Amino acid sequence: MRICIVGCGAVGSLFAANLAQLEDVEVWAFDTSREHVDAINASGLRLSGAGEVLGRLRATTDAQELPACDFGIVATKAMHTEPAIRATAHAFAAGSVATVQNGLGNEQVIAAHVERVIRGTTFPAGKIVEPGHVQWDVKGDTTLGPFDEQPAPFADVELLADACTRAGMPTRAVEDARGPQWRKVIFNASTNPIGALTGLTHGRVCERPDLRALVSGLVNEGKAVAAAQGIELDSDPEVLIDHAAKPEVAYGHKASMLQDVEAHRTTEIDYLNGGIVGFGRQHGVPTPLNEAIWALVKGVEQSWQQ
Amino acid sequence: MRICIVGCGAVGSLFAANLAQLEDVEVWAFDTSREHVDAINASGLRLSGAGEVLGRLRATTDAQELPACDFGIVATKAMHTEPAIRATAHAFAAGSVATVQNGLGNEQVIAAHVERVIRGTTFPAGKIVEPGHVQWDVKGDTTLGPFDEQPAPFADVELLADACTRAGMPTRAVEDARGPQWRKVIFNASTNPIGALTGLTHGRVCERPDLRALVSGLVNEGKAVAAAQGIELDSDPEVLIDHAAKPEVAYGHKASMLQDVEAHRTTEIDYLNGGIVGFGRQHGVPTPLNEAIWALVKGVEQSWQQ
Repeated sequence: MRICIVGCGAVGSLFAANLAQLEDVEVWAFDTSREHVDAINASGLRLSGAGEVLGRLRATTDAQELPACDFGIVATKAMHTEPAIRATAHAFAAGSVATVQNGLGNEQVIAAHVERVIRGTTFPAGKIVEPGHVQWDVKGDTTLGPFDEQPAPFADVELLADACTRAGMPTRAVEDARGPQWRKVIFNASTNPIGALTGLTHGRVCERPDLRALVSGLVNEGKAVAAAQGIELDSDPEVLIDHAAKPEVAYGHKASMLQDVEAHRTTEIDYLNGGIVGFGRQHGVPTPLNEAIWALVKGVEQSWQQ
Repeated sequence: MRICIVGCGAVGSLFAANLAQLEDVEVWAFDTSREHVDAINASGLRLSGAGEVLGRLRATTDAQELPACDFGIVATKAMHTEPAIRATAHAFAAGSVATVQNGLGNEQVIAAHVERVIRGTTFPAGKIVEPGHVQWDVKGDTTLGPFDEQPAPFADVELLADACTRAGMPTRAVEDARGPQWRKVIFNASTNPIGALTGLTHGRVCERPDLRALVSGLVNEGKAVAAAQGIELDSDPEVLIDHAAKPEVAYGHKASMLQDVEAHRTTEIDYLNGGIVGFGRQHGVPTPLNEAIWALVKGVEQSWQQ
């Protein structure tokens, strides 16, 4: 089986290096970072932290080099989905492509370029330490399911989930993967931008009753939009939020969006709160708080252009 | 007539220096800045910009030095009202005290210390250039009216308004001064924190349809809270907002709250959005957007303590 990781950043690297451990899987990686690609080809892709792994795989910045693949796993930031899948789509003419990205709408973008699409959500996290070396911060589960509008065959979903699980990335294949996806989106959309706008860590946000109430207001809008689509969340995002606020979990964690804002990098807000607002409009569910937060973070991004 | 300016910052100085031009008015100023007080006593209080004025008056940092006054004009930042009026109240035992401050609730705080209170709103603005010297940026009207819960006699309100007007600060005495006050509060609460949270000038905020919609959402909540109290706004805050966004008016203006945030100074958010939320709760009017914005700015203030 040949699998190509599209976007071999932190999360993509966790899949790439682990899958490369399997004898029956050939792993390719497509990434735009010349340094990262060169390091991977020269010395392999190394993970350290939650697991020590060295993966041997072929990496490239040139999509034309990719052979035909059975599977793609798209792991770019949401705003890079379109160019990434446009460049690589030819490799998946006979394959199925999964997204394990943050946010809403990635499946639709992928489906414009390839035929068989898999909706996915993943909880493992890490960060690139240096080219060819990723720190694996958090282990966690992945869920995959056929994308309803343009589904991959369920047998393919099971095949990919099985490979990931055997590689050390526990993955479930389910008929409807929207529950975990919306739980994660609601979690991210309700906490990430609050950290980004205030400069507070997740724990400090949750300690302030006024901000915690705002978080719940955002969660409730997200739940209403999910419910209007018949999506059953696999668990309550509020539980995840309170759990993450514990000192031993992620009290001092700076939301990735806060890190983006501090570095003046475009955030994923369009695919988080923007996604919730978009689906809310489609289904007649008002989302004024998500709209407000979306607008504020877009304003912050614009201020960097002044 | 003896008038004491309580809090002789930018706005207080506009009243102090102009009133000091009148032969029938003796002006005192109470302020906590030793440098500013010393400069005023040594060389007078100078205004430049929209008007060139040199006012001779007595300034002090020691409230015990204040003689009995006919009027007080409180012009501190809203969070300093309580200590300022507590320190100076003895001087107004037989007088009336007006507030020309930003925000809601200042009258209540003053009324806890003095008997006769005047509600006021003022539009002139400036900034302190150096001790004893204030730049007068914008001329504008002032409105005064008896504070309903603990009113000054209307004749007193007229007397003070007349003195201000003769001094070059056009001032109306009205029975109900809540209309202009709420218009200004709604304007400030709907625009100031958006600039503070995004880093954008007023004009840039108004150019973005998403942020402009958020501003209108905040305005609408404020209008609903005003209406629930039977307050008739003297004009639509939306008009003021669009007017201020014009290039020749205040397109490039950094909201004072943005200046506060950049300098890590406590903002007036509790008395703006916090005030609207408080009156909203009293009158059963939901104000979710003002609550969200209030919480976010409080979070920003807290982040400076990390």
